[in-house]
Amino acid sequence: MSLLEQYSAVRSHSVMVCDKLQKEDYVVQPAEEVSPPKWHLGHTTWFFETFILIPYAVAYQPFNPDYNYVFNSYYESIGARVIRTDRGNLSRPTVDEIFHYRAYVDEAMEKFLLCGVNQEIEELLILGLNHEQQHQELLWYDIKYILGHNPLFPAYAADNIEKGLTLAKEGWVDFKEGVHEVGHQGDAFHFDNEQGRHKVYIQNFSISTRLVSNAEYLEFIKAGGYHDFSLWHAQGWDWVKEKQINAPLYWYEIDGQWHRYSLSGLESLKMDAPVSNISYYEASAYAQWKGMRLPTEFEWEVASSLFEWGKLWEWTESAYLPYPGFSKAAGALGEYNGKFMVNQKVLRGASIATPANHSRNTYRNFFHPDMRWMFSGIRLSK
Amino acid sequence: MSLLEQYSAVRSHSVMVCDKLQKEDYVVQPAEEVSPPKWHLGHTTWFFETFILIPYAVAYQPFNPDYNYVFNSYYESIGARVIRTDRGNLSRPTVDEIFHYRAYVDEAMEKFLLCGVNQEIEELLILGLNHEQQHQELLWYDIKYILGHNPLFPAYAADNIEKGLTLAKEGWVDFKEGVHEVGHQGDAFHFDNEQGRHKVYIQNFSISTRLVSNAEYLEFIKAGGYHDFSLWHAQGWDWVKEKQINAPLYWYEIDGQWHRYSLSGLESLKMDAPVSNISYYEASAYAQWKGMRLPTEFEWEVASSLFEWGKLWEWTESAYLPYPGFSKAAGALGEYNGKFMVNQKVLRGASIATPANHSRNTYRNFFHPDMRWMFSGIRLSK
Amino acid sequence: MSLLEQYSAVRSHSVMVCDKLQKEDYVVQPAEEVSPPKWHLGHTTWFFETFILIPYAVAYQPFNPDYNYVFNSYYESIGARVIRTDRGNLSRPTVDEIFHYRAYVDEAMEKFLLCGVNQEIEELLILGLNHEQQHQELLWYDIKYILGHNPLFPAYAADNIEKGLTLAKEGWVDFKEGVHEVGHQGDAFHFDNEQGRHKVYIQNFSISTRLVSNAEYLEFIKAGGYHDFSLWHAQGWDWVKEKQINAPLYWYEIDGQWHRYSLSGLESLKMDAPVSNISYYEASAYAQWKGMRLPTEFEWEVASSLFEWGKLWEWTESAYLPYPGFSKAAGALGEYNGKFMVNQKVLRGASIATPANHSRNTYRNFFHPDMRWMFSGIRLSK
Amino acid sequence: MSLLEQYSAVRSHSVMVCDKLQKEDYVVQPAEEVSPPKWHLGHTTWFFETFILIPYAVAYQPFNPDYNYVFNSYYESIGARVIRTDRGNLSRPTVDEIFHYRAYVDEAMEKFLLCGVNQEIEELLILGLNHEQQHQELLWYDIKYILGHNPLFPAYAADNIEKGLTLAKEGWVDFKEGVHEVGHQGDAFHFDNEQGRHKVYIQNFSISTRLVSNAEYLEFIKAGGYHDFSLWHAQGWDWVKEKQINAPLYWYEIDGQWHRYSLSGLESLKMDAPVSNISYYEASAYAQWKGMRLPTEFEWEVASSLFEWGKLWEWTESAYLPYPGFSKAAGALGEYNGKFMVNQKVLRGASIATPANHSRNTYRNFFHPDMRWMFSGIRLSK
Repeated sequence: MSLLEQYSAVRSHSVMVCDKLQKEDYVVQPAEEVSPPKWHLGHTTWFFETFILIPYAVAYQPFNPDYNYVFNSYYESIGARVIRTDRGNLSRPTVDEIFHYRAYVDEAMEKFLLCGVNQEIEELLILGLNHEQQHQELLWYDIKYILGHNPLFPAYAADNIEKGLTLAKEGWVDFKEGVHEVGHQGDAFHFDNEQGRHKVYIQNFSISTRLVSNAEYLEFIKAGGYHDFSLWHAQGWDWVKEKQINAPLYWYEIDGQWHRYSLSGLESLKMDAPVSNISYYEASAYAQWKGMRLPTEFEWEVASSLFEWGKLWEWTESAYLPYPGFSKAAGALGEYNGKFMVNQKVLRGASIATPANHSRNTYRNFFHPDMRWMFSGIRLSK
Repeated sequence: MSLLEQYSAVRSHSVMVCDKLQKEDYVVQPAEEVSPPKWHLGHTTWFFETFILIPYAVAYQPFNPDYNYVFNSYYESIGARVIRTDRGNLSRPTVDEIFHYRAYVDEAMEKFLLCGVNQEIEELLILGLNHEQQHQELLWYDIKYILGHNPLFPAYAADNIEKGLTLAKEGWVDFKEGVHEVGHQGDAFHFDNEQGRHKVYIQNFSISTRLVSNAEYLEFIKAGGYHDFSLWHAQGWDWVKEKQINAPLYWYEIDGQWHRYSLSGLESLKMDAPVSNISYYEASAYAQWKGMRLPTEFEWEVASSLFEWGKLWEWTESAYLPYPGFSKAAGALGEYNGKFMVNQKVLRGASIATPANHSRNTYRNFFHPDMRWMFSGIRLSK
Repeated sequence: MSLLEQYSAVRSHSVMVCDKLQKEDYVVQPAEEVSPPKWHLGHTTWFFETFILIPYAVAYQPFNPDYNYVFNSYYESIGARVIRTDRGNLSRPTVDEIFHYRAYVDEAMEKFLLCGVNQEIEELLILGLNHEQQHQELLWYDIKYILGHNPLFPAYAADNIEKGLTLAKEGWVDFKEGVHEVGHQGDAFHFDNEQGRHKVYIQNFSISTRLVSNAEYLEFIKAGGYHDFSLWHAQGWDWVKEKQINAPLYWYEIDGQWHRYSLSGLESLKMDAPVSNISYYEASAYAQWKGMRLPTEFEWEVASSLFEWGKLWEWTESAYLPYPGFSKAAGALGEYNGKFMVNQKVLRGASIATPANHSRNTYRNFFHPDMRWMFSGIRLSK
Repeated sequence: MSLLEQYSAVRSHSVMVCDKLQKEDYVVQPAEEVSPPKWHLGHTTWFFETFILIPYAVAYQPFNPDYNYVFNSYYESIGARVIRTDRGNLSRPTVDEIFHYRAYVDEAMEKFLLCGVNQEIEELLILGLNHEQQHQELLWYDIKYILGHNPLFPAYAADNIEKGLTLAKEGWVDFKEGVHEVGHQGDAFHFDNEQGRHKVYIQNFSISTRLVSNAEYLEFIKAGGYHDFSLWHAQGWDWVKEKQINAPLYWYEIDGQWHRYSLSGLESLKMDAPVSNISYYEASAYAQWKGMRLPTEFEWEVASSLFEWGKLWEWTESAYLPYPGFSKAAGALGEYNGKFMVNQKVLRGASIATPANHSRNTYRNFFHPDMRWMFSGIRLSK
C-alpha cells in the first residue's frame, strides 16, 4: 500500500469505529481515563496537523489555532492543554465541526502526500498512523464505558467485536532456563519502548496456552476471593475496599444470576469466554489463589509463538521499565513513552479492539495496575 | 388564560430557551451546580408525568419506566436517583428522545386537561408550571456556564437577555423603625417558604435605589479588595484563597483590559451595567469596603415598592429560615423548600432570566453563599 | 475582686482544668476542631503577651518571638500562623516550656497590673480573661474528645463536671405575640455580637422548661430517626450518610446495651440525663419527629427567666447574624466575632463546662450545624 | 553472641535512638508515612509478645489485650487495627506505659530464652530482631521529620549520625555484559524478598564510585531542573507541581543562602556531602539532566564490591518485584514483603541510620517513588 492508501485506510477506520454512535455519545467523559469520542477524532487529526502540516506543508493554514488548546493531550511541550478531567465539559467544537476538521486536514494531507515525502516525514506519518490506531483501540474502550455505565444499558450494535472473545485449547508449554533474546528486531515500525534487541536470562517456566475463562474466574469469586486479603497486594486490597469491587467491570449480579454488559447490551455471562476487563490487582490475586503467577513480559515474548494470542491484553508481572540503552527522542515526540515508565505494568498481546496490522509479539502495552476499562485478561504461568 | 393555555405557554418557553443550542450543548455538566440542558427538559417533564399523569390520568402508560431513575432530582421519596454530579456522564436518553418524551407527555397532559381537573390537581399543575419556570431560569445559568467555560467562548446569540442588564437612577430611600408585615398574602400562587403573612420589627434603615455597577465594583478590585482579609467572612476568605478568586465570574483581564463573557460572547466590560455573577461573600466584602451593608430580606420587601428591581437577584444579609408556622407538606412535594433551610442566604428580586409572571416581592430565592453562576447582584443598605 | 485577683483566678483555672492530664494528652489533635490542650495554654498566654505586654509594658521582653507563629489562632492581621490542622503535629514547645511561658507572662502581668492601668487596658484585660474562659470551655471539649476517642477509653477522673448533667422539671411556658427587647444592656462585660439592645417582634410560642433526655432521644433512634430522610435537612441527611451517624457522639451500642463515654470512662447510658453532644442537624430532626421545632434565639432570650438553663448549650433555629448596627472593631480584635457570621447557628445558655461568671442570657454562642464535640442539647419549642 | 545477648543488644538500641527526645516528641505523627516514636517502641514489643510469647511461652499473661489493637501495624490477619493515619491521635498508652510494656516483655523474653528454644522459635526471634532494626532506622527518619518540621527547628543533639554523611572518591567502574548471579546465598539471616540466588543477564555498564553531592545537585536546581518537565516522569512532574517541590526535603533557601535541617538543627548546606532525602522522581530527573541513568538493582549488586556504600539508600531503576520462585510464607508473617511488590522502587545499600549488622549487598529496600523522608541518595550509572 502506498503511504496515501495507508493514511486513508487508517483515517477511515476511526470514523467506522464511531459509526453507531449518537451525537451525544461523542461528548461525555464518565471517568477520568475515558475521553469523549469526539476528542479522539480531533486529537488524532491535530497530530497530523501539528507535526506534519504546520512544519512541512508550505502555505498550510491551520483550521483553527484554538484547537491546539483543545486537542493537545499529554504533550507538555506544545503549550497549555485542557486538563484531562475537563474534556467531558466541552460541548464545542461540535461533532460536525470536528468532522469538518478531519476533512480539512485529510484533504491537505492527501495533497501533501501526493507530492512525495522524505524519510523523516514518512517516519512521522507512520508514527501518526500508529498513534491513531492506538486511539482507535481506546475509542472502543471508551465507547463501551460510556454506554455500559448508562443506567439504560444501550447496545452499541448487535453485531460487534466482542463476538471475537473465544478461548483457545487448554494446555501448558514448558521452557528450560537460559539466555534468550527479546525486543524488536528489524526495520518495520515499532515504538521506542520495544527497541533494542537484547539478551535476558530466563529461569525454567511453564505457561498456559489458554486464557482464564469467565467460568474459572467465577469460581474465584464464589470462593471468596474478593474477601481474602491474603491474596492481594496491599494496594490492591485498599483498592478493593475503597471502590467496593467484587467482580470484573461490567459484571452485574441480578436476582442471583450473573450478567455482563457487552457492546450488544446486558446479557447472561458467557461461561466459555475469557474473563476480561480486570485490573492487574485482580489478575494477580486470581493467580495467587490458583497457586500460580502471571508470566513476566520476557517469558511471554519468548513463548508467544507457541500459543494463540490477540483476544485480550494480558497482564504480566513485569513493571514497565526502559530497555537497556533506551533514551527519549528529543522534542514533543520524545514524550511518547518514556515518561510513563514508573508505576505501570506491562501487558502483552493484543485485543479484539486492536486494529489489524497493529500487533506484534514485542509490543509493550502498559497501564496502571488498577485500570480495567480496557480488554484485559489473564494467562497463568508457573 | 385557561390551564391548558398556561401549560402550553410554559412548556414551549423551555424549548425556546434552548433554541440556539447545538446538540452537544445539551449534554455536558462542567460544574456540580450546573445540570445538562437536556436533563432540565426531561426533569420538568418527569414532574408532570410522576405527580399528575401516573396518579390521576386513567390508562396512562409511562413513556419509559427507567426515566424515573434518570430524571428524578432531589426527591428522595421517589426512589434511587442519579447522583447529581453524574448527570453530565449520561449520553442517553438522547436529546431527540427527550423531545419525544416531552411531546408524549404534553399530548397526554393536553388530553387530560381538556377533561377538566379538580382543585387538588390544579394546584399540582400550577406548582409544576412554577417548577418548570424555575428550571427555565436555571437553564439560562447553565447554558451561560457551559458556553462561557469553553475555551472557544462561543456566543449563544448576538441578541439575548443580557441586553436587559441596565442600571436604575441613583438614590436612597429611608425608613423609620417600627412593626411591618411581610410574607405572602392572598390566594395567588406562592411557594410554601413565603407563606404566612406576619409582623416583624425593623430598625431605621436606608436602601439604595440602584444596584452596584461594574465600574464601582472595579474600584473595589483596584483598591485590593480581594487581598484584604479584613473585608471578608472567614469562610469567604478561605474560598477566595482556595479558588484563587480575584473578580466576578465571567470577568477576564486580557492585556490589561477587563472583559466579560456574556451570552453574546467575550466583550469589553460595560462600566454602566450592574455587576453580576458574584457570590454572597463578594457582595458582603464589597459592602464592608463601602462602610455599608446588605439589606435584610424584610427591609428589602418593605422597601421594594420604592425602587426598580428585577434585573438581578439581590443578595440579602438574611439566612434562609422558616417563617413562623412553617411546616413541610407531606410526601415528595414537601421536600420542595424546607429541607434547604440551613446554610443558605436569601436573595430577593428577580433577574433577566426569570420568566414573565414568575416574580413577586415576597419571593424568597436562596443559594449557598459561594454560588455565583446565577445572575446575582448587590443593592446596598445602611 | 481587683483586676489582679480576677486575672489570677482565671489563669489558675485553666491549669486546674488540665490537672488530670498526662503529658501526652496535651499534645494530640484527633479532629480538626480539637486543639491540643498545650496549645490552648499557650494561645491564651500569647493573647496577654501580644495585646497587653508588648504594646503597653515598658521594657517587656517577649518570651520567644517564634511563639507568635505557633500560638496565633485566627488573627490574620498578626502574621503567618500554623495552619489549624497542623497543631497536633507540633511536639515543641513542650508542655514544660509552655508552663514556663505562662509563669513568665503571669509574672510580667502581675507586675504590670500592680502599677495600675487605664480604661483601655482594663477593657483589653477583661476581654483577655473572657477569651481565656472561652478556651477553658474548649479545653473540656477537647480533653473529652482526646480521651473518648482513644481505643483504651481512659477516664479523666472519677469525679468530674459531667455529674452536673441533670434534668429540670417538665413543663411548658407560653408567650403572647408582640414586640420585645433583646440584646445586651448595661456596662458589664459582653461581646460585640450581643451588643445593641433592640426591639424584635415575636409571634405566639410555647417553650419547654426541660431539655430532651437521653431516654427520649433513644426513642427517636429506635423509631428509625436516623434512617428517615424526611426528618432531616438535605445537608444533614448527606452528613448522616457520609459520616455514618446513628447516635449522638460518645454513644456506643455494645451487645445490645447503649453506653456513653463520659469523663469518668465508658458507662451505661443514663436515661434521666439530658441528651448531649448532638449536632444542629440531629436537634432539628428530633424536633421534626416530635412535630415541634427549636426556639429562635429571641424566643429563648425572652423566655429564659422562666426556666432553668446552664447545663448544655441549646441549639436554636436562628442563624448567627449581626444585630442591627453591628460593626467590627478595628484591628486584630475586630476579628473576634464578626467574621464568623455566616453558615453558623446560634446556641444559647451555657454548659457544665462554662466557667463561673461567664454566662448570661444574652450570650450568643455559635457553631457550624454539624459540630457536636461540645456539650450541646435540645430544648423544644412550638 | 548468644540469642539472649543479641536480643538485649537490639532492644536497648531502640531505647538509645530515642534517648534525646522529650516526651512530646514520642507522640506526634506529622505525615502519613511518619509514625510516633512511642508507636515504634510499642509495635516492636508487640511483635515478640504476639509471635513468640503468646504462642510459645507457657503461662505468659499478655500485658494488656487492647494493645493488639493499638500496636498492630499492617498485619491484616491479626485483627482490627488502628488506621495508619490515626496513630498520631493516640495520647494513651503513655510513653511511661510503653516503657513498662517493654520491660515486662523483655523480662518474659529473657526468662523464656534462658530455657533454650528450638529452631522455629530461633528463626522467629531473629526475624523479630531484624524487624526491630528496621524500625530503628524508621525511628531516625521519623524523629528527624518530627523535629525538622517544627517551626522552632529544635536539634536532636549536636553530635549525631548525620556526621557520617561523607563522600567517597570520584571514579567509574566498568562491567562487560554477561550472565551474573544475584540474590542471597547461604544460611545467614535474610528476608524472603532477597532469597533465591539466580542468574541474570546484564548488559555493559559503568557505575560511579561516588554518590551525587549537594554541590552537584544544587547545579541541577540552578539550571532550572525543577521547572523542565522534559526531565521528569509524568507522575513525577505532577508531584512537583502539586506539592510545589523545588529542592530536596529539609533544604531551605533563606536570604539567598541554602540551608539544610540536620539532626543538629538548621545549618548552611554542606557542599561536599552527598545529597539526601530525595525522591525517586528527583533522582531520576537529575540523572536524566546529566545524560545518565540510575543503575538497576542487579548492576548495583554485581558492582557493589568495587565501591564504598552504606551512607545512603540508593535509588535504582528497578521496580520491586518477586525473584524467581518467590512465594509468601503462610500466616501473618507472610505479609512481610510480598504484598508490597507493586508500584515501589528498589533501593540498595544502607544508610547512616541503618543499625550495625543490618546491611548486606543483597538487601532489597523499597519505597514508593515519591517518598523522601528517609536517607536516600543518587549513584549514577551509564
